[in-house]
Amino acid sequence: MSHARANALVLQSGGPTAVINQTLAGILTTARLHPKSIRTVYGAFHGLHGLLYENLLDLSALPEHVLAGLAHTPGAALGSARLKPKHEDLDRLFEVFREHNIRYVFYIGGNDSAEAAQLIRSEANERKHDLRILHVPKTIDNDLMETDHSPGYGSVARVAAHVLLGDDLDNRSFYNGIKINICMGRHAGWIAAASALARRCVENEDPENCGPHLIYMPERKFSEEQFLNDIQNTYDRLGRATVVVAEGIADQLRGSRFAGAKDEFGNAQLSGSGKLGDFLAQSVEKHILVKNNLGKLRVRSDTWGYLQRSLPGMVSPVDSEEAFMVGSAAVSEMLAGATDKTIVLKRISEAPYACSTELVDLEKVAQRTKLVPSHMINSAGNGVTNSFFEYVLPLVGELPKAYSLGAVSKVDKKLCEYIRV
Amino acid sequence: MSHARANALVLQSGGPTAVINQTLAGILTTARLHPKSIRTVYGAFHGLHGLLYENLLDLSALPEHVLAGLAHTPGAALGSARLKPKHEDLDRLFEVFREHNIRYVFYIGGNDSAEAAQLIRSEANERKHDLRILHVPKTIDNDLMETDHSPGYGSVARVAAHVLLGDDLDNRSFYNGIKINICMGRHAGWIAAASALARRCVENEDPENCGPHLIYMPERKFSEEQFLNDIQNTYDRLGRATVVVAEGIADQLRGSRFAGAKDEFGNAQLSGSGKLGDFLAQSVEKHILVKNNLGKLRVRSDTWGYLQRSLPGMVSPVDSEEAFMVGSAAVSEMLAGATDKTIVLKRISEAPYACSTELVDLEKVAQRTKLVPSHMINSAGNGVTNSFFEYVLPLVGELPKAYSLGAVSKVDKKLCEYIRV
Repeated sequence: MSHARANALVLQSGGPTAVINQTLAGILTTARLHPKSIRTVYGAFHGLHGLLYENLLDLSALPEHVLAGLAHTPGAALGSARLKPKHEDLDRLFEVFREHNIRYVFYIGGNDSAEAAQLIRSEANERKHDLRILHVPKTIDNDLMETDHSPGYGSVARVAAHVLLGDDLDNRSFYNGIKINICMGRHAGWIAAASALARRCVENEDPENCGPHLIYMPERKFSEEQFLNDIQNTYDRLGRATVVVAEGIADQLRGSRFAGAKDEFGNAQLSGSGKLGDFLAQSVEKHILVKNNLGKLRVRSDTWGYLQRSLPGMVSPVDSEEAFMVGSAAVSEMLAGATDKTIVLKRISEAPYACSTELVDLEKVAQRTKLVPSHMINSAGNGVTNSFFEYVLPLVGELPKAYSLGAVSKVDKKLCEYIRV
Repeated sequence: MSHARANALVLQSGGPTAVINQTLAGILTTARLHPKSIRTVYGAFHGLHGLLYENLLDLSALPEHVLAGLAHTPGAALGSARLKPKHEDLDRLFEVFREHNIRYVFYIGGNDSAEAAQLIRSEANERKHDLRILHVPKTIDNDLMETDHSPGYGSVARVAAHVLLGDDLDNRSFYNGIKINICMGRHAGWIAAASALARRCVENEDPENCGPHLIYMPERKFSEEQFLNDIQNTYDRLGRATVVVAEGIADQLRGSRFAGAKDEFGNAQLSGSGKLGDFLAQSVEKHILVKNNLGKLRVRSDTWGYLQRSLPGMVSPVDSEEAFMVGSAAVSEMLAGATDKTIVLKRISEAPYACSTELVDLEKVAQRTKLVPSHMINSAGNGVTNSFFEYVLPLVGELPKAYSLGAVSKVDKKLCEYIRV
């Protein structure tokens, strides 16, 4: 199929990431190299919503320096949405495509967006509408099939490592501390798993002493009893415990008790509330037995919420680069004739780490979820294996180095034991 | 009073900061330059608890490279505590001092620690015990009297700016978003105020459009009605709102409803729970009227929790430097004879910014709280003034630069309005 000169449309969809605008920059920068094929690049203002309501932005006038700055700005610059094209929307969609001579569509998003792209594409076939559409991967959840990892994940994994390291150092500042962290991850535990990187950051200490001591991922059945046993064991060994729980385990706790409203893809809101963390903290307070003389348990929970996915100043350089790369590759591939595909990252070398892009059929990605594979989860189901570290380390950039006091000696006691009244 | 060669003791107390170990490093490094006066530096393991239970650490053997690494490690390396010396504890305290020949005490902490230092010091006078004690300031809350600012504040202010910038960029990715952020600050709104720095980070946009649009500090009476009115007004103007609330306003909402257990200084636990954020979000959901066709309100709340005070990778360089400086100054001043004082930072130059250290009587600091002064709070009581920016900008290091799409033009509509079913 040969294309006349036509307009392109970019949509950003689903949850933003710290590098989703790099993908937009990759698309725009590369499209500008092909003015004979792509006349103007439009942005849909708030994804599918902008397309349906004909709220389109002309990105051709965007100055280079603003585009360069945007590329390093977290959040979805075009505006995002969580809408799914309904059957009744399809006439309208193709009216907009036709009226604005849009023949190139770049749908930046996760597996829901891949499903939306697939719906639009199959409708284009039926209508014999000359349209190319590519899905360009983006999700902090890292749950897209086929790709080695998703742009956006490296940065949130980097944030998880930093946040958990700080949190564990904070936790060990107090005695009897049990700290529960709730991170994002509806179906897959990739972000929770990444928090394990913090264990490798304390230079002069046994990683066994460093948090997170326990990690719970939705890939495994969550048992409140096992959770409490695990914490009791960790507490008995170390006098404290730092725990990470992926929000998705809420689905396993008494139905939809912790979930908010659902979007059009059927995803219930899990973030933006501290309920799950508060519930687990209360359970710990009720059940964990203090076995020393240091007073009662100090139980706290934090829900990382939205800050984990959009934090400036903590972006993984390789994630940033790859997010640009998938956008750029999408334009090149589409102009070479590709449609009805998603761009994936393929790891072509381990040392030094290198990824290239490939094309994969949309149907292999849409509506599917890549879970953390069994060989990356420990046998107890409460932590990760070395395979996971090998997988994740190249994606997150340089990690911080922390120190503990190390092997300082205790001063010999000279007095009798003190009993405080 | 002339001192024979004796041992020194360092205590870390209260909530940790990202730079509290810099102060420990400042003390140790400087003490090591004076071996004729200070024989050994001991660390109290978990502050007053370690002192009472004679859990002392010998820090003299701490290798230089570990000390250098520790200095850049968040959290209280010696362990912290929230204990207040009781009358019944005093005999024991002085037994420990005597048995271990401790005559130099460095109490790193906030205003509660200043109170503890004052208690110990006045008891030493009565007992005619040869003891010098200095309070060395540390608190993310920035609520210590007399000092220009407290070591620890610059870094949490830096975190607040980054987190809020990311959060606001995330919020604007969706339509109809009302986002409530709960930050630390029991009595004073310094951290909430610092989030306003995010408004200055978007290079190509009117700060009026940038979050935080509203900031609530405990210095002002919190009215739920005014809060909802303010949000409705912001929403009507921008179609969204990003809001920051200092946790301390919980005290004004139906008594102690949101507070947890109290420590020995009478401070109730406010952090480590999402209750306040959830409560305010529910109130917003119930009361704010949506006045457009973009669907219902998207209300979320995040409670920043402990990660704000101990985040590695986001430390303010000037904060780090000053935290070392106050520790070092404490040793020099004590060896010159000072006792019964606190170290304060005095701003001696605005451009270029410079601070020096001075000594102030403990009684001017103990049990007192420095609030955000009126000239730094706007007249509506929901934001900050330029005076605050002038005060805080030198403390936080370089801020991130973000971009919005800016003045891209909308594509002319060609179709009739769409009504989605």
